Amino acid sequence: MDWSNIQESRRQTLGICSRCCSYETLKKKLPVLGWLPRYTLQWLQVDVIAGLSVGLTVVPQALAYADVAGLPVQYGLYSSFVGCFVYCVLGTSKDVTLGPTAIISLLVSLYTYEDVSLAILLSFLSGCIQLAMGLLNFGFLLDFISYPVIKAFTSAAAVTIAFSQVKNLLGLKDIPREFVLQVYETFRKLPSTRLGDALLGLSCIVILVLLKWMKDTSPRMHRNIPRFYRLCNLIVWFITTARNAVIVIAAGLVAYSFQVLGSQPFILTGKTAEGLPHFQLPPFSETTANETRTFNEMVQKIGPGLFVVPLMGLLESVAIARAFASQNNYRVNTNQELLAIGLTNFLGSFLSSYPITGSFGRTALNSQTGVCTPAGGLITGLVVLLSLGYLTPLFFYIPKAALAAVIICAVAPMFDLRICKTLWNVKRLDLVPFLLTFLVSFWEIQYGILAGILVSIVILCYPVARPQIKVLESESLVLQPTSGLYFPAMEFVRDTVHEKALAVSPQRSVTLDLSQVTMVDYTIVVGLRDLLHEFKSQGLCLTIRGLQPPLLQKLMAADLKAFHHLQGKTEDRLKDEDSTEPLLQGVIGPSK
Amino acid sequence: MDWSNIQESRRQTLGICSRCCSYETLKKKLPVLGWLPRYTLQWLQVDVIAGLSVGLTVVPQALAYADVAGLPVQYGLYSSFVGCFVYCVLGTSKDVTLGPTAIISLLVSLYTYEDVSLAILLSFLSGCIQLAMGLLNFGFLLDFISYPVIKAFTSAAAVTIAFSQVKNLLGLKDIPREFVLQVYETFRKLPSTRLGDALLGLSCIVILVLLKWMKDTSPRMHRNIPRFYRLCNLIVWFITTARNAVIVIAAGLVAYSFQVLGSQPFILTGKTAEGLPHFQLPPFSETTANETRTFNEMVQKIGPGLFVVPLMGLLESVAIARAFASQNNYRVNTNQELLAIGLTNFLGSFLSSYPITGSFGRTALNSQTGVCTPAGGLITGLVVLLSLGYLTPLFFYIPKAALAAVIICAVAPMFDLRICKTLWNVKRLDLVPFLLTFLVSFWEIQYGILAGILVSIVILCYPVARPQIKVLESESLVLQPTSGLYFPAMEFVRDTVHEKALAVSPQRSVTLDLSQVTMVDYTIVVGLRDLLHEFKSQGLCLTIRGLQPPLLQKLMAADLKAFHHLQGKTEDRLKDEDSTEPLLQGVIGPSK
Repeated sequence: MDWSNIQESRRQTLGICSRCCSYETLKKKLPVLGWLPRYTLQWLQVDVIAGLSVGLTVVPQALAYADVAGLPVQYGLYSSFVGCFVYCVLGTSKDVTLGPTAIISLLVSLYTYEDVSLAILLSFLSGCIQLAMGLLNFGFLLDFISYPVIKAFTSAAAVTIAFSQVKNLLGLKDIPREFVLQVYETFRKLPSTRLGDALLGLSCIVILVLLKWMKDTSPRMHRNIPRFYRLCNLIVWFITTARNAVIVIAAGLVAYSFQVLGSQPFILTGKTAEGLPHFQLPPFSETTANETRTFNEMVQKIGPGLFVVPLMGLLESVAIARAFASQNNYRVNTNQELLAIGLTNFLGSFLSSYPITGSFGRTALNSQTGVCTPAGGLITGLVVLLSLGYLTPLFFYIPKAALAAVIICAVAPMFDLRICKTLWNVKRLDLVPFLLTFLVSFWEIQYGILAGILVSIVILCYPVARPQIKVLESESLVLQPTSGLYFPAMEFVRDTVHEKALAVSPQRSVTLDLSQVTMVDYTIVVGLRDLLHEFKSQGLCLTIRGLQPPLLQKLMAADLKAFHHLQGKTEDRLKDEDSTEPLLQGVIGPSK
Repeated sequence: MDWSNIQESRRQTLGICSRCCSYETLKKKLPVLGWLPRYTLQWLQVDVIAGLSVGLTVVPQALAYADVAGLPVQYGLYSSFVGCFVYCVLGTSKDVTLGPTAIISLLVSLYTYEDVSLAILLSFLSGCIQLAMGLLNFGFLLDFISYPVIKAFTSAAAVTIAFSQVKNLLGLKDIPREFVLQVYETFRKLPSTRLGDALLGLSCIVILVLLKWMKDTSPRMHRNIPRFYRLCNLIVWFITTARNAVIVIAAGLVAYSFQVLGSQPFILTGKTAEGLPHFQLPPFSETTANETRTFNEMVQKIGPGLFVVPLMGLLESVAIARAFASQNNYRVNTNQELLAIGLTNFLGSFLSSYPITGSFGRTALNSQTGVCTPAGGLITGLVVLLSLGYLTPLFFYIPKAALAAVIICAVAPMFDLRICKTLWNVKRLDLVPFLLTFLVSFWEIQYGILAGILVSIVILCYPVARPQIKVLESESLVLQPTSGLYFPAMEFVRDTVHEKALAVSPQRSVTLDLSQVTMVDYTIVVGLRDLLHEFKSQGLCLTIRGLQPPLLQKLMAADLKAFHHLQGKTEDRLKDEDSTEPLLQGVIGPSK
């Protein structure tokens, strides 16, 4: 079952109507049209199993992530089904599953302060921003986030998220949200650990780790193994795959038993709202008992989250889509992915969802199960809806420590510092954005990412800002930049010219050879004008040589006084358009 | 009197002790040591006149800018003298004068909400950040702010600042600070204009414009003109140069006369604190009647101002220093400028100063007057101190409309959209960051600048993200990137390889020729590894050819599984270090 082969055969089948542009375009915008006409019963079988596995994972995770986001648990489920249906129609990856994730939940908690209305509004606004970016083909912006930055921020987020769950794991209370204070308070309150919660939480972690290990090491089934063993194997496969659900149900049963016996050693999830969310407008303003908040005030409260949440959502989702596309040998369309996640957030906000993105863990599970098309998402969505419809009363008995164990095991693989060694070997300078992002993310995750992006762009652009300039000593001094000239280079060029020609005694005239330069921007033009002025005021000569015709035209077009003289000397040659002579010479002399 | 010649002769004089590194280094860090030993009486004469002219400008401007910053007027003066003394010792430009400016005042008002303690704390923190940047040689970062962005944001700021003064000019009350609301409310309240204020304000503007015109068009004095005419000329020169002070004093006299007559048609500045500011620690925490604020809470209140104010301060000051250095033919040291402005803000905060920077208008005045060294600043500083010591009671009578006229005339030249036409001719793409910065700055100035910088960097980096890849059809398909490969390019390379080799039927093996690539970063290494995996899983061959030895070593060092096979085939050649053969070949085949 190979996604790329499916795409390939489709391409051949439809080769006849290749000129039928409108259908092809429509198929690009609605990828479901690509796979649905060729859907088979065999695919359905695998998709159902994959969808079920993901569904049994997303329900416990959603409850847990809602706690990370600082919202009542049912909001995790409200956020988990819209994406399944939207992605089925719009997604370009068969593996990706959209829903609440650890990092986005952390960000939501930072920017919405445990306020449901703000979280839903943020989902609406994120959706609008992401849709706009998708429609404007802004997907290429995500290429500017380098791999070390992504690794650093996911590792830092893993630590932050895992640590935020230690309080639930140990049954500690009154722990602040800010990371440093959290660590301090958690250690200070360690003596007041509740035995029941700690025992339950730690055993859940141990069991989850064991189950994961079993899944990873289980051998592939062969056809010639007796049916009974195959059945056993299937049961083990089911338990290890749905291990999050198994653990949460088991812990819930234990808690229920204690409840029946009349004592309760665990902190429970408690009462959750029953039933499906209502379809209603997102809260554009809000009136509570104490105060009325306008749209403006709510947006101001969210603040930088308005940029961070949609961008991180896109980044996470696209990174995951690309990773699994590469693994399973197909390509995703970044801009189409933006549309899918944007529409999910947009529609989700009408169904009380908080912002969502692609989940790494569940996408991996989907891919491992061998999902054939995004149709698996429909099953996942149904599982979530059924849970919401019929299981919410049972959520009362889920111990918080068990959910904490689920989260800690989900984020643990995200923490990976082995990359440091490789960075040291491959390019030491890349350690700077990595460490900067990692460390700053503990303070504020958005500043960490921003700092990492900025530093990696500065590293990228440094050679542009400090171009090589060849110095030739012939009759006069010739300076020749060996690559293009862009705005960050201007000050450096001026410094170099100054140092070589004007700061020496006696001062010298200079020829600036721009034959290697193919592009200029306005900053460079202004800089050249200032240099010409400077030389003129000193009674010296700055000759600009080797201007390629388009470049010379640009300088002429700038309509700056200093270039007028240049024009006089060169316009005759400019007229001779057939000339293949690439060098034109303009001279600015001192006014006599 | 030529600053560059002075530097030159100094260099020759000190040529003997050129090996005496410590003194040279000290002189670099304390530029005053460069000019003070050679200071002459003739220079003193010019410096005193320049210092006085600037002083007579800074006093009325400081009062007005304090209003822009939303602070009591005396804080403008508190902020105006520290910079004069510090810059005299540390500055590398003879022209620059530090003090409150229109843009920084606007930013201060945005981030400190008319709260004196926050403004002083912001000055302290800005100083620390600027000092750190100077000590870490981060001056090159300012090169990444392109000329169109600077132009756009100064133009937008000019409009915002000028419009914020219309209410004072017309005597309107209860006008909000937010730009759009301000425009709306100002026009709505136009009918309630106070006649007195409007008449005074508009006449002040007309007179200021006339005086400026007179100054700009006045001919140079010749030695053979009779003494009486020279005296007249000198008086006119004095009045036109100190026009701000003249206008403010005249308006104050008019207001005082009305006061004596028992009626007051103008809104006056009112009571200001008398005397010099006390030397005391900046307010690291604050206790008022209603509440106690910790350092953390105050910093959070300032928010993004913590980045915007120090950066804009540096940008403005360095841009001005560079402009006048270019005009008067000397060079400034960017990092030393950072130290000077950082120390000024740092020390200023102990003397109740709000953040300051280099002022374009006063620097231009200084330069026009022909100042010889930064010693002129000492006189300016003294003028400010004398005003604070003796004139504060008189500030009571200064009409707000007159100060508004001073500001409007100061910022008007900053508004300049003629650049649009040049941008259209030279590089149309540069219009995007220009217009984006200009428009967004009306919403929030920091987002405008940020958006402009980001967009110009994206434009700069776009060719890096989408490198040219030559496709050669020989026996196998050869893809050759024609320039370096950096992280933003990876997705594009993978897409290209995929499109040419894996998405065609039949799928093909590919040779990737990296002979033009001299550098890789970690993102590229990971991308290449994934590509190798992808080809292997399809049973195809991806050959990487033309690796330059250092690059090959990097790939080996990455210690990624996929490269192991490569290593086996090439390590023999690697050992042969004398080989000048630049092309090494590594092949990954399908596992058999």
